Amino acid sequence: MKKNILVGQSGGPTAVINSSLYGVIKAGRASQEINSVIGMVNGIEGFLQNQILDLSALPEQEAMLLCTTPAAYLGSCRYKLPEDLEHAVYGQIFEQFVQYQIGYFLYIGGNDSMDTVSKLSRYAAKIHSDIRFIGIPKTIDNDLIMTDHTPGFGSAAKFVASMVRQMVLDSEVYHTKSVTIIEIMGRSAGWLTAASALARKYEGDNPVLIYLPEADFDLEEMLARVTTLLESKSNLIICVSEGIHDQSGKLICEYDQEIATDVFGHKNLTGCGKILENTIKERLGVKVRSVELNITQRSNAVEASLTDVEEAQRCGEEGVQLALQGESGVMVGMERKDTDSYEIQYKAVDVAQVCNQEKLFPKSWITKDGADITQDFVQYALPLIQGESRPLMENGLPLFLYRKH
Amino acid sequence: MKKNILVGQSGGPTAVINSSLYGVIKAGRASQEINSVIGMVNGIEGFLQNQILDLSALPEQEAMLLCTTPAAYLGSCRYKLPEDLEHAVYGQIFEQFVQYQIGYFLYIGGNDSMDTVSKLSRYAAKIHSDIRFIGIPKTIDNDLIMTDHTPGFGSAAKFVASMVRQMVLDSEVYHTKSVTIIEIMGRSAGWLTAASALARKYEGDNPVLIYLPEADFDLEEMLARVTTLLESKSNLIICVSEGIHDQSGKLICEYDQEIATDVFGHKNLTGCGKILENTIKERLGVKVRSVELNITQRSNAVEASLTDVEEAQRCGEEGVQLALQGESGVMVGMERKDTDSYEIQYKAVDVAQVCNQEKLFPKSWITKDGADITQDFVQYALPLIQGESRPLMENGLPLFLYRKH
Repeated sequence: MKKNILVGQSGGPTAVINSSLYGVIKAGRASQEINSVIGMVNGIEGFLQNQILDLSALPEQEAMLLCTTPAAYLGSCRYKLPEDLEHAVYGQIFEQFVQYQIGYFLYIGGNDSMDTVSKLSRYAAKIHSDIRFIGIPKTIDNDLIMTDHTPGFGSAAKFVASMVRQMVLDSEVYHTKSVTIIEIMGRSAGWLTAASALARKYEGDNPVLIYLPEADFDLEEMLARVTTLLESKSNLIICVSEGIHDQSGKLICEYDQEIATDVFGHKNLTGCGKILENTIKERLGVKVRSVELNITQRSNAVEASLTDVEEAQRCGEEGVQLALQGESGVMVGMERKDTDSYEIQYKAVDVAQVCNQEKLFPKSWITKDGADITQDFVQYALPLIQGESRPLMENGLPLFLYRKH
Repeated sequence: MKKNILVGQSGGPTAVINSSLYGVIKAGRASQEINSVIGMVNGIEGFLQNQILDLSALPEQEAMLLCTTPAAYLGSCRYKLPEDLEHAVYGQIFEQFVQYQIGYFLYIGGNDSMDTVSKLSRYAAKIHSDIRFIGIPKTIDNDLIMTDHTPGFGSAAKFVASMVRQMVLDSEVYHTKSVTIIEIMGRSAGWLTAASALARKYEGDNPVLIYLPEADFDLEEMLARVTTLLESKSNLIICVSEGIHDQSGKLICEYDQEIATDVFGHKNLTGCGKILENTIKERLGVKVRSVELNITQRSNAVEASLTDVEEAQRCGEEGVQLALQGESGVMVGMERKDTDSYEIQYKAVDVAQVCNQEKLFPKSWITKDGADITQDFVQYALPLIQGESRPLMENGLPLFLYRKH
């Protein structure tokens, strides 16, 4: 009997998570063994409320728009299943699986989403269910293990590098000395901040300093560096991860917070960029501004990487293939072939191993002074930002696929 | 005898100020009456230090890159010439004009730059110099009078509308209630913030509230509106100009500043978005975040409006034509023809009138409740964001023209 695919999106949105969704729909449609592709609205949390959507009913022309639509078409959730597999929620979920004739469960997401895949597949083994559970990787943070990189990272990295390059030009229009701090997403993994290095055009070009959470940050050392650099260069750009911290582990963004409270006595939480801006201004008396790229770096699909979009789609397709081949409890992993040209091989990796690990930026790719990254990262990252994925335009603005709310 | 053109850029950078520069170079090269096109490095301030560049030496292939290079290729300045035309600096400038055989002075900029053009042209009249002074409009703020709009606005408006549309999708992925404040540039003119309305796809779509500096902002009224809106819509986007203020004229960004000081006792200046974020969080207990688009909105040339890029270039060309026709003390103005299709006519307008005025967003285009804009603006702005100008790409990133520093 033909079975249905149940697919969901979970965790933070990216530029290409919908491209993976399209891959699942496409592969599902192409297979004789699949009846329908059913979408969970707001992930497993929405599914528990029977919030579903028949994706097979989506006309192909609309479905294709998914490849250039950012965020998460199906909606997302941050729902953690209980550790105890005896919990009643598992019984409920599997009852619903039967009700909807689900044979294959595909979940597109990061660490936490892989945890969901792992738990459901273990529960299935426990009750001898033949439903197959597959994880499809997604995160701008690039922090999943057992995969060369994660879909979503390439597009975010491309946007960061492009915007940094453009802000470098912007910062250099006046000859008066200035420092610009650019704060980039990444609480514990600095991959995305490292991508700012791709913006450089020549030796000594901005950003002159790059700080990741993987190296301890020393405020005095940075101030000394800035002082020295300003002697030979008028306009400095410094890129920092939101999660940089000092040797004691204290986050830089928490440095001033006891004092910066608002009229309600409420902590006025600002990012580390603002803290550094104020500190450099005060201590060095130079013009400083800080820019927080914020959610723009994960929302932008107009400057997405075609490589990333295509790989994301392929991950969705491979996920369906793995499920059809009988795999369960696995994530689609990407392995870079050891060839001169960039080539990716897709394979099944154990989702239980993936879900509780975090792939940090290699310490060996950070320069000894902790204030820059090495050429190894540039070589690693450049293939991931190649090619332009452009949404269709309508009346001067990108045309996206909207789900009726 | 053939004369040289002297051209400069002044004030804040935009995505298309270099396109106007290309227009000047192109028209200068095409004219038999022009010898060379000389660029002032860092505007009139750099010129006073003899900082110049022979733009005629720029190979055409490189010059064309100007049309897709953001910021200000020649560098910029914020230098105000003295009111007193008897001041010695005027004599010095005009001596340098003679030294460099300048016949035509073209200055690309906003209000302050037009003030420079006005003063120099009046000084020329005073000393019976036949050098001609022309202003070429530029500002993302769209606040120059006597022109339908200004080059730079269309591209910034397109980027704002595109990013807002993408952040709307991002904000809607979770079903938990949330408010996102997006702070957009504009201290006294709300044109760019109004462009966020272009992001809407359907009636009732985000952004649900838009606040400009041209209407008094009432915090309690906004809180009441947000409360009501959250009853029927889960995720709200609110767009605000950085310069919104209350009825007394007090800026919203100054509301908390006496308290939010850092460890140095230094005012921790945050934008109004952060203030609204904290206030809504505290008062309504809902999830809130704020995003400041900051300099990304004026730096981005990857999503520039082709209409804007072409008009900017044309303004540069028209400036040269007006100079050759004997005009001086004028700015290139853009007049929208009263036809069904969008068509622009270029004309000379009195720069002395332009330089001391500011074109604010029309009050009649703000809805009565002060929390939105009318369809009149949408009709006005849509033609300005049409068409895609895309930089050449090199290794996955935009290729720009760099000036050796």
